[in-house]
Amino acid sequence: MIKAILCIAGTVAFAMAANPEFTAGGELQFPKDYREWIFLSSGLGMTYGPAAAPEGDPRFDNVFVNPSAYRSFLASGRWPDKTIFVLEVRKSRSEGSINKGGHFQTDTAAVEVHVKDEKRFPGGWAFFGFGRDEQTAKQIPTSASCYSCHSQHGAVDTTFVQFYPTLIDVAKANKTFR
Amino acid sequence: MIKAILCIAGTVAFAMAANPEFTAGGELQFPKDYREWIFLSSGLGMTYGPAAAPEGDPRFDNVFVNPSAYRSFLASGRWPDKTIFVLEVRKSRSEGSINKGGHFQTDTAAVEVHVKDEKRFPGGWAFFGFGRDEQTAKQIPTSASCYSCHSQHGAVDTTFVQFYPTLIDVAKANKTFR
Repeated sequence: MIKAILCIAGTVAFAMAANPEFTAGGELQFPKDYREWIFLSSGLGMTYGPAAAPEGDPRFDNVFVNPSAYRSFLASGRWPDKTIFVLEVRKSRSEGSINKGGHFQTDTAAVEVHVKDEKRFPGGWAFFGFGRDEQTAKQIPTSASCYSCHSQHGAVDTTFVQFYPTLIDVAKANKTFR
Repeated sequence: MIKAILCIAGTVAFAMAANPEFTAGGELQFPKDYREWIFLSSGLGMTYGPAAAPEGDPRFDNVFVNPSAYRSFLASGRWPDKTIFVLEVRKSRSEGSINKGGHFQTDTAAVEVHVKDEKRFPGGWAFFGFGRDEQTAKQIPTSASCYSCHSQHGAVDTTFVQFYPTLIDVAKANKTFR
């Protein structure tokens, strides 16, 4: 019986464990394996993005969330403590290989992370911005517009569930969508 | 010892197992959990897509692959037998919530699946197209243009790795990129 419980615990840990990790100085460690997390959606050239392209081809925003938080959300319509969102901003091109129109994704331009850690952050959530190849990032000051915008316009708990098509109905069914 | 082995097997199965499943008549079962698979990339309005929008807002193509195939590819630059690609075609909108430009994703328009099963299909791969809410799909005939186009233009083993930015360097390092 004990072995069986340990086995289940091990299974869950393998598939789901991805907690935010911080340096002693409070910087967030880059979430190295986020490309294996759950994809929520992608936008192109969205005007609310934090890292819009200054000119030329528009940028894609790919949003990922850690698997344990995703499964918790599917069950409850709520983001648990230790939820980690990754917004990966990618450059785009129109012409390449056989493609002659529209846009496809190329290099990463920036990675923004939105973390829920209720003991660490007043309000529960904090933002971090990673430049290219940066392994740690300082918290973005709470005076930045990302905090007020997410707080005012995020459909669920300061997050933009209104742009994640597979989660909208989950939140509505759980009455957490505003 | 036996219990330990079973435990490990169970763990791997939980996280990675996603083999193509067919009906007795050879139809492919809809891969229900593909939104928890590995996201490879997304395009908007790409001209080579199989389900371009007839008019109005362009469509997004989200590409997912089963986790076991992804990990095998990272290690070898090759797609193993039982690889399953899912191309999810989604409608888009420009205006919604705080967004006033660019495009974000809305409802699913179609799901196309590309499966590698060397015993089942001459050439190794086959395509399947699922309409909305369809749970099984017949194989698309090999005379269809998707076969010849993927065969002629796919960078790796009839797949469009040239459009998956995190895999291009893996394939090049393994000398499987053409």
